[in-house]
Formats: sequence, C-alpha cells, structure tokens
Amino acid sequence: MQINNQSRDVFYVSDGTAITCETLGHVVLGQFPFIPNEKAFPFVETPDKVADVVKEIETSYQRNGVKPLVFFSIVLPDVRELLLKAPAFSYDVLASIVQRVKDDTQMEPQPKLQRSRSVGKDSDTYFDRIAAIEYTLAHDDGITLKGLEEADIILLGVSRSGKTPTSLYMAMQFGLRVVNYPFIAEDISLMRLLPEFEIHRHKLFGLTINPERLTEIRENRLSGSEYASTEQCKLELDTVEALFRREAIPYINTSSLSVEEITTRIMEKAGMKRRLF
Amino acid sequence: MQINNQSRDVFYVSDGTAITCETLGHVVLGQFPFIPNEKAFPFVETPDKVADVVKEIETSYQRNGVKPLVFFSIVLPDVRELLLKAPAFSYDVLASIVQRVKDDTQMEPQPKLQRSRSVGKDSDTYFDRIAAIEYTLAHDDGITLKGLEEADIILLGVSRSGKTPTSLYMAMQFGLRVVNYPFIAEDISLMRLLPEFEIHRHKLFGLTINPERLTEIRENRLSGSEYASTEQCKLELDTVEALFRREAIPYINTSSLSVEEITTRIMEKAGMKRRLF
Repeated sequence: MQINNQSRDVFYVSDGTAITCETLGHVVLGQFPFIPNEKAFPFVETPDKVADVVKEIETSYQRNGVKPLVFFSIVLPDVRELLLKAPAFSYDVLASIVQRVKDDTQMEPQPKLQRSRSVGKDSDTYFDRIAAIEYTLAHDDGITLKGLEEADIILLGVSRSGKTPTSLYMAMQFGLRVVNYPFIAEDISLMRLLPEFEIHRHKLFGLTINPERLTEIRENRLSGSEYASTEQCKLELDTVEALFRREAIPYINTSSLSVEEITTRIMEKAGMKRRLF
Repeated sequence: MQINNQSRDVFYVSDGTAITCETLGHVVLGQFPFIPNEKAFPFVETPDKVADVVKEIETSYQRNGVKPLVFFSIVLPDVRELLLKAPAFSYDVLASIVQRVKDDTQMEPQPKLQRSRSVGKDSDTYFDRIAAIEYTLAHDDGITLKGLEEADIILLGVSRSGKTPTSLYMAMQFGLRVVNYPFIAEDISLMRLLPEFEIHRHKLFGLTINPERLTEIRENRLSGSEYASTEQCKLELDTVEALFRREAIPYINTSSLSVEEITTRIMEKAGMKRRLF
C-alpha cells in the first residue's frame, strides 16, 4: 500500500466477519476526502491472531509515517488490549453505544462473540432464509408461475430493469419470497397482465428505469442490437409504465438506485414488515 | 407493540436505507437481555417525514411509559434536530466516529446523504456486481461448466451443504464470480474430480457439514427419503472429505456457520482480496 495526501491505510478488525465494521467504516470514510487502502481481518479471537494484525499495523505506520485507521469490534478484553497498543487511530464501532444503552436502560450488557447470524440457536431463521432464497431462485425471470400464493411480492418489469438482483437481495437479507416476471414482446403488444396474476394483484410491484440508462445497460450486454436501441427501450418502457398506471400497480424508477435502495423503497411503499437477517 | 421487562421498542431512523443502522443495532442489542420490538424508518430526509417518526416515538413512549431506543444516522442538521426532540434514548451511529476521524486526521468531513452504494457515480462497480450475480446464477448447481476461466472460486460439496446461498452471497456482497458444483452419485462412486476442474485446481474449495446437520436439512426437504437418511449422508460426506484430503482441496465445515461466516472464512482461507460492495 502506498500513501500520499489522498490515501490512508484502513484496517477492519473483528472477532466476527468484520462485515459490520467494514460497512460502517465505508459510510464514515465516505465523508472524508482521502482514498482508503482497505484490508479486513475477520475472526481475530486470539492473542496470536491479533499479534499478526498488530504487525501489519506497525509495518503500515513505518512505511507511511502516518498512523493507519482501525475500525474494530472485539469483545475479549485481552485481545482488545493488544490491538489498542498498535500505532493506529483506533475506533471501537460498538463500545460507546453499548455503554450508553447500558446507562440509559440500566441493564447490564453480556458481551459475546459476534455470532449474530449464526445458525446454532436459531435454526428456524436459517431455514426461513434458505427457503426464501430457493423460492426466489425457482421463480426468477418468469421460470414458473406456480406457487404464487406463497410469494411475498411479485416484481414486474422489462428485461434489465433490475428485477433479478433486487429479488435475490430481498430473499437474502429480508427472507422474502420473491417472484420476478419479465414483460416479453407479446405481453407488451397486448398490453395486458397475465391472468395468473389477477388474484395476486395486491402483491404486484413494478420496476421501471430511464430509457437512456436501459439502453446503456442493454448495450453493455448486446451491443448494437435492436434490443438495446433507444427506440425499443423507450417503446417497452412507455407501454409498461402505461400498464402500471392503468392497472394501479405501484412502481419505482430504479435508474439511480442500488439494490439496497430499490429493496428498501419497495418494502416501504408496499408497507411490508421488515425483518433484517 | 407491547412492552414488559423483557421488551423494548427500538427504532432505526436514517436518511438512507437504514440497513447500516439496523445491522449495528442488532449487534449492540444482541448484548442486552431485553427483546427488541423493532421498526425501521428509511429515507427520512425531510421535516415532514421526521415528524411522522417523532409521532410514532411519542406514541410508543405514552403507551409504554418507557422511552424507546432510537439508532439513527441523519446528515441534514434540521432533520436531525427535530428527531432529537422526541422522547427517546437516541444513538447517532456515526457522529462520534466521524468526529474522532476528523480530529485524528485533521481533515474536514463533507457530510452527504448516504448514497454509499448508489450507482450514479460508480457505474463500473454496479456493472461488476450485476455481472458477478449473473455469472454465479448461470453457474449454480453445476448448470454449466463453461467459462470456468472467469470464475473467482469454484465451490464443491454434496447436495445441501450450503453451496448456493454462499455463492449468491459472495456475488452480491463481494462481487465474486462463483461456480458451484454438487457431487452426484456417480462422482461419489468414482471418487474423482471432473477433468474440467484440473486446470482450475487453484480455484477449488470444498464445503462439508456434519452428518446429523445434513440429515436435518435434507429431512426438511424430503422427509423419510433415502437421500435424507443418516447412512446416505454419512457415506457421501466421508467419500467427499476423503477426496478433498487426497486432492489437497481446502475445505470448511459449514454446520454452525451463517452464509456471512462461511463466505468470510473461505475468502480468508483462500487468500482472496476482499472488496465489500
């Protein structure tokens, strides 16, 4: 790793996956102008493992002459103490909030290793999540329209409007059973909903996208094709949006949104109960 | 929502998706003995929207006689001020760390709405992620073994050892292109690797699982079948583990791990560069 005014070494250190540390670190660092050179150290649970991390921090400091930033979350006191001896600016992402919750609620925290998503104790949650992923895979891209009564939501949209990644994210993070169905040429020329969807109207949700963005995405896939042409994209989108409006199907424009944002907005608009895995 | 000694109303409030707030809140609350009644309020960016949240907080306080807990992240000062007037124990999940990074680095933070994963500025990242998801879907469950040269990793294991959820999580969160291949009866009786894998040996990674756990998972799917029987599970696992050892393929036991943990451990063991989306 090199350093200059615009860059900084950043380490994420955790006794768990370090994914929470890293996610939080990204949001914090997003507010600063330097470019982070990042490295994650998961499962740092022993003095031996933390010694390796400390060594890397020392190397970084010696090389750059500037202390690296360390975002960490470590429950075991002796492991934590060792980490805090390293030459770094270190931020415990949990400790100050845990302390404040303790003071406010007058309850004693019981520190434990971060196994928040482990399957050991909560097998039902695990099976719910796996079942949601399997259901969603089986109902991706209109593969089948059987079993719609088990769906939590049915996403509709033209090819490349973001249905598949959104569906998988919804299943993975929120345990939702998602059907996604692409409008094909015939649906578009008839401008109608499939009869299979009639009794599940309340589950329907539309995705749309700007024609320019759709063209860009389709060009990336099939450059120069009619499928990717601005005219074709515009025709499909105009027709589908008219259908959404006529049938009173709620819909959102995915053009400048991440799958996290699309998912969150859909769940909010559809009034779905949120349960993060 | 009801409250008693064992439960507390908890709100996650953010001008973004609130997923970071909620993830952090889960880890913090995992250390306390009460049961959280949770509700998330994403995209709280205006005085109007925050007024609705404040109203819900007031209702909770009046109903329970105990202040609810609020984990929040809001950049706009006027919106934040309104939230802080509500009768709650409120925790800004970012502010204190941002302040300390500012002090330590002597750099000025530029607060911005949390669009960390938006596609606007970083279209390449978006396409990388989508491409990884598509590649992984196309190579799920041995559907095809074409294009292995593009794979970042190839997961091997018996049916129900956790390959599909792990593959999708790797693609979604880390942008990895993952192939997963289930050992079928013929592979197991011949106890050999497919010749297609030979030149990609360095990409192979095995998943295994305890026979009892595998039986439980398969019973959940096909109750009473030979497929789910302890003998069959044990036979398959013994054979496959022997193969992993003989061929020097690294492997892990997924029995008590979440997909996040399986993913993190594989990436660590395989020495893969980590880049969180």
